[in-house]
Amino acid sequence: MADAARTLLLEGDDVPGVLSRVAAVFAAHDANISSIQTLASGSGRAMMTIEVGAGADLGVLVRDLSALPLVHRVALEPSLLSIYGKRVIIIGGGAQVGQVAVGAISEADRHNIRGERISVDTIPLVGEQALAAAVHAVARLPRAKILVLAGAIMGGEIAEAVRDIRRQGLLVISLNMVGSVREAADLVVTDPLQAGVMAVMAIADTAKFDIARQRGKTY
Amino acid sequence: MADAARTLLLEGDDVPGVLSRVAAVFAAHDANISSIQTLASGSGRAMMTIEVGAGADLGVLVRDLSALPLVHRVALEPSLLSIYGKRVIIIGGGAQVGQVAVGAISEADRHNIRGERISVDTIPLVGEQALAAAVHAVARLPRAKILVLAGAIMGGEIAEAVRDIRRQGLLVISLNMVGSVREAADLVVTDPLQAGVMAVMAIADTAKFDIARQRGKTY
Repeated sequence: MADAARTLLLEGDDVPGVLSRVAAVFAAHDANISSIQTLASGSGRAMMTIEVGAGADLGVLVRDLSALPLVHRVALEPSLLSIYGKRVIIIGGGAQVGQVAVGAISEADRHNIRGERISVDTIPLVGEQALAAAVHAVARLPRAKILVLAGAIMGGEIAEAVRDIRRQGLLVISLNMVGSVREAADLVVTDPLQAGVMAVMAIADTAKFDIARQRGKTY
Repeated sequence: MADAARTLLLEGDDVPGVLSRVAAVFAAHDANISSIQTLASGSGRAMMTIEVGAGADLGVLVRDLSALPLVHRVALEPSLLSIYGKRVIIIGGGAQVGQVAVGAISEADRHNIRGERISVDTIPLVGEQALAAAVHAVARLPRAKILVLAGAIMGGEIAEAVRDIRRQGLLVISLNMVGSVREAADLVVTDPLQAGVMAVMAIADTAKFDIARQRGKTY
């Protein structure tokens, strides 16, 4: 589990240049920013959350950020990693995505009760281009660790996208379906509930499942 | 649907101060940044994605960012909003979260086939504090529009968190359960599949469902 409070919530004036001044404070302390999210603002105010990298002195950052004339309030919040944890992503057809989700949510429940944080995120989609774009973009989703492809037929650009995100360190499970994604995935699982359960086990610290030992197999 | 290509992917040197220089370019052009995500980097390189606010001149930004000595590559990518769309968030017990997810995913499938993008994201959790923190943090999740509380008993701090995120513009559906979240939610739905379906309908542009007309009702 990551540090529970490595996120700063800033409220300030909604004018250009706020982010630039904020980033300069981090740069002055050699502190890393892992993400910045600008939140809905109103009445001339802007809010942003900043996830701070490991090793930074939060006390010093809060002090110097609070001293900026454009910043009105700085608060510490728990990080999204500590709240929602690692993410299983499920992409494909509605029928199969729903059943993989049931398996994954049930298994995530068992691990979260033992102190982990694993969430299960899904999108039902149709069409090779839309699916390939969604698979590619999993590499840009914060905290995503494993993808389950839940469809009846997937190949071509989707298989290419699977190889691309595996090179970037993501794990991929495919249902047993028509097309070339089966060969591109780490593991093929026929039953959708089982695929969801195995996806959670593969990324859970409290499970003994090692997907590296199952690579290329079909269940 | 949002503009399909308002996200910049930057590759640069992994040294402090990159973000500060990048933010200065945006400030110089009065361009807004809605989010920045730093991606996994290796071998001294850093990658970040920047979602650019509406109205900015992307061509000028790409030109000036490419001219920074620390930046090696700037590419345009489709935004996460255009790929994964609006998010339904489901939080609660594994049994109920799974069934709400099945309803929501099935309904999202029907809208996504007609050109929308709606994703369904879940986390099974136990305990008042953990649940209240997860509900509060929905306001910090990009693209989240509606929350479904899927449990058997929820009240106290969780109901407070529901009121808090409703004030920030989020919609909340509660299953028909023990505790005070029912009164805090926009709408109470007894059947978990129906709750998932209604949650998607409430945020879909292609649906005729207006949750404002159903406020305070129980189905």
